[in-house]
Amino acid sequence: MSNYLNDNEVGIYALGGLGEIGKNMYCIEYLNQIFIVDCGLLFPDERLLGIDAIVPDFTHLKENEDKIVGLFITHGHEDHIGGIPYLLQQVNIKKIYASGVAVELIQDKLSEIALDKPNIIEYKSNHKFKFNGVTVSFIRMTHSIPDAFAICFNTPYGNILHSGDFKFDFTPLGPATEYDKLTKIADEGVLCMLADSTNALVEGFTISERKVYSSLRDIFDHIEGRALIATFASNLYRVQQIIDISIKFKRHVAVFGRSMEKTIEIGQNAGLIKAKKDTFITADQIPLFPPNQITILCTGSQGEPLAALSRIANGTHKFIKTIPGDTVIFSSSPIPGNNAGVNKTINQLFRNGVNVITNSPLTDVHTSGHAANGELKLMQSLVKPKYFMPIHGEYRMLVAHMGIAMECGVRPDNIFVIDNGTVVSFSNDGAKISGNVHTGLTYIDGSTIGDLNSAIIKERRILSDEGMVSIVITINERTKEIMMEPTIISRGFVYMKSSEDLTRQISNNAYYTTKAELEKTPGINQVAIKNSIINSVSKLIEEKTSRKPLIIVNVMIV
Amino acid sequence: MSNYLNDNEVGIYALGGLGEIGKNMYCIEYLNQIFIVDCGLLFPDERLLGIDAIVPDFTHLKENEDKIVGLFITHGHEDHIGGIPYLLQQVNIKKIYASGVAVELIQDKLSEIALDKPNIIEYKSNHKFKFNGVTVSFIRMTHSIPDAFAICFNTPYGNILHSGDFKFDFTPLGPATEYDKLTKIADEGVLCMLADSTNALVEGFTISERKVYSSLRDIFDHIEGRALIATFASNLYRVQQIIDISIKFKRHVAVFGRSMEKTIEIGQNAGLIKAKKDTFITADQIPLFPPNQITILCTGSQGEPLAALSRIANGTHKFIKTIPGDTVIFSSSPIPGNNAGVNKTINQLFRNGVNVITNSPLTDVHTSGHAANGELKLMQSLVKPKYFMPIHGEYRMLVAHMGIAMECGVRPDNIFVIDNGTVVSFSNDGAKISGNVHTGLTYIDGSTIGDLNSAIIKERRILSDEGMVSIVITINERTKEIMMEPTIISRGFVYMKSSEDLTRQISNNAYYTTKAELEKTPGINQVAIKNSIINSVSKLIEEKTSRKPLIIVNVMIV
Repeated sequence: MSNYLNDNEVGIYALGGLGEIGKNMYCIEYLNQIFIVDCGLLFPDERLLGIDAIVPDFTHLKENEDKIVGLFITHGHEDHIGGIPYLLQQVNIKKIYASGVAVELIQDKLSEIALDKPNIIEYKSNHKFKFNGVTVSFIRMTHSIPDAFAICFNTPYGNILHSGDFKFDFTPLGPATEYDKLTKIADEGVLCMLADSTNALVEGFTISERKVYSSLRDIFDHIEGRALIATFASNLYRVQQIIDISIKFKRHVAVFGRSMEKTIEIGQNAGLIKAKKDTFITADQIPLFPPNQITILCTGSQGEPLAALSRIANGTHKFIKTIPGDTVIFSSSPIPGNNAGVNKTINQLFRNGVNVITNSPLTDVHTSGHAANGELKLMQSLVKPKYFMPIHGEYRMLVAHMGIAMECGVRPDNIFVIDNGTVVSFSNDGAKISGNVHTGLTYIDGSTIGDLNSAIIKERRILSDEGMVSIVITINERTKEIMMEPTIISRGFVYMKSSEDLTRQISNNAYYTTKAELEKTPGINQVAIKNSIINSVSKLIEEKTSRKPLIIVNVMIV
Repeated sequence: MSNYLNDNEVGIYALGGLGEIGKNMYCIEYLNQIFIVDCGLLFPDERLLGIDAIVPDFTHLKENEDKIVGLFITHGHEDHIGGIPYLLQQVNIKKIYASGVAVELIQDKLSEIALDKPNIIEYKSNHKFKFNGVTVSFIRMTHSIPDAFAICFNTPYGNILHSGDFKFDFTPLGPATEYDKLTKIADEGVLCMLADSTNALVEGFTISERKVYSSLRDIFDHIEGRALIATFASNLYRVQQIIDISIKFKRHVAVFGRSMEKTIEIGQNAGLIKAKKDTFITADQIPLFPPNQITILCTGSQGEPLAALSRIANGTHKFIKTIPGDTVIFSSSPIPGNNAGVNKTINQLFRNGVNVITNSPLTDVHTSGHAANGELKLMQSLVKPKYFMPIHGEYRMLVAHMGIAMECGVRPDNIFVIDNGTVVSFSNDGAKISGNVHTGLTYIDGSTIGDLNSAIIKERRILSDEGMVSIVITINERTKEIMMEPTIISRGFVYMKSSEDLTRQISNNAYYTTKAELEKTPGINQVAIKNSIINSVSKLIEEKTSRKPLIIVNVMIV
């Protein structure tokens, strides 16, 4: 028995994914067994503070390592698998259950790090895994990456269904949703459903991936020069469509961007990407063909500064520049935090004099992979859960999804809109919030974990907004004399040459503060001097400039 | 004669506003007279670097101070008047021509700074000002602030029309657009039009401010608790509508947020804001009325962290908290850079359990102040310019506006899509690009100008992304001995306690680098030692951590 769950109860909680889009990680716990669903990362707004990504704080899992049965992966997107290398650095995970493309993407990730590799068990749609009191099974769904699954945990209290990320694409390019399994699970009784809330605020139904095919085909039909097209590399259906359309219009395809090259390779190995021989060409072959026989398929649909399309737009790409007559298609929509970057790339492309096509209701060159309001109602209608927990969304999306579930007949008391860490427990007495587990953020900068912490991020924020001032003061150990004028260096602070006066004032202030401090005690109290200088100089600087730079003091006793 | 304009030519150029939304500043130059139109600021994306605002670099105006006839203001928005206090700190401007609310807003700005005040000349719609060869007149337009004007510069070569910011509101709340003046100017002949491109990418026509009234009225009709409504303070029409609707539904209005309080005061003085006695109440009177008799009108529609609504949402406002039953209306749309902030506020409001209404085609609680595609075509049709210069927009918007002008019959060769600083000159021989004037960015942090420069911003960017490492090394002047272990302090860098090893390596590296450097020369070359340490330690840190922090070295010779 733990402090958040009684014996014989089933517990559900999230370590990430509630109140945010990203770092999805959910746990189902029963009879001292923890079933982890997904381990994603989150791309932060605060990129200016040098943070590459954020993953969940794994302390709870570390402390309960012996209970972990395995990590079950719904699909291969970064917000569901991107945290795995960091998890494995901290927690012993013996088994990862994943399917299809997700397996390849995880193996690719793990190939880059030196670690004891966990056993990756590739599940198929019809597999079942039996544990103590729990049977795990899978339901194929449609999403913007192949091999996306919902996962069902059958317990003595009923089924717990985790939707994974999904949309209902009624004319999918890959296999269809296994509707029969969803209704069968419903017939058995669904105790609780956890479902994707990303598009809960979007009315109606998302358009089918197949519609994007006809839109792109019509656009390609009118392009006279080269076609440059950027999309999410992981959407292998989209990538295949672009290849198909290129072949149809007798274009060769040159691929740029590491993630695009990698997923095409994975897709080819998995039989998901098919192309006639001679379809793909390399950069040096591009000049051998006229512009209207070239498609350039690349990364950079989110305006990422180092991605292929951004470099091509800025003229900093090693092989490719835009040329007049080019048409650039963004087969994507900007993730909210990326608006500025996408905008910058588009403006630059206009400056280069090329045509730019972005997604809009007029072009339909992209569709979302997440169920809108109408599809979420269909999901509720098929699954008929007794309890419901909206997941995978900002708070307002979770609340909107709660509204949808209520419209579809779930009792308001049976809906849990909760935060990361809150534990909902299920027993014969029903469901209740029964406690909390530790959660938090872990900042990633580069590939190692744990060398950034919130104190460092806080320092970076101050440095970023206000800059820093360094003061060195030298004291003779024997005579207690201040040996020279204190040395002042500033970075990212105000323009100091124009304010030599301020430098002198800081120097004088540090000098006299030190002198006063030296007179207080018989010896030399290095810490007291340092703190006095910081206090006194901070006040001076704030008074003179209304600024609060980070102040670093070195008291050298020689 | 200057190097960018011949005698007798008319020159047009921008110091800000082309390729961006913000810091609008355009110049018309003729016979050694510079007519400046607007002086705005731009709110940057890079707020994390502590930049409050960016204004144009005024060097060109400083160098040509004697030619400046005056600053002509189209309307009172910050992106048109916000730069004035900074301009006046650097350049002697004798006369500012402005109208109505803009005059009040400028005077309010200038009251906060100690400067020789320029002469503010309040123009009315029917005024004309005659200069050498140029007559300036004004055309009332409709926009999201009262008293918005287009400005016409009549020259021997024809009229030059600057549209200001505008939309065509066919059912405006204030005075209508002076269509007759536009067509009269067209009949006289418009040599060149400069027009607002903000919504050139938006199809159709913007909805009327009057439609917002009926939308808000229908919403207020159903609100049972308090109504909290945030909007742009400067949109006095919107503010008056909210007051009118509150009175209609027997609600008292409490106003929060400095800019809202200020513009309501200005609006009352100007007769633009009218309310029955007892309409406005103070914070301490709120508890005296039931919730359904309260409207809270506040700032914060852009999710600005310190604005009233954000504080109310976060529970940090001095007087107001949300209570169950509240309805919060965002009568606004987020400016692209503000999406994240607005989102954060909305999520927090949902957490507080209140109702939130944002603008959408379903609610129509906001409308843009800028002409969409259809209105821009109407403007072209009314004015029929020979030459056209799209202004006030990102590059893609300027290009879209060019397309609109071409559709309406302007010859492609007669359209100038240019950058800030590019001079287009007009003579009897037609128009051409004839040179460049100096342009640039001036960063504002606080209220003083010139103490931030691009080098400081660059330092802040490095500090923000990578942090800093400070190294102090002490050398005995006489013996050339290194007197103690080099002192290492880092801020915003990696978690150093977990990497004592790295600290030691940096210290050793600095020690031996210094030693080697000391052996090279008979004396002590302080600069050479410093540079060697920076080079050597940078390499070490990059090798060990893949990071490039800012490195500060103090070589103390004692």
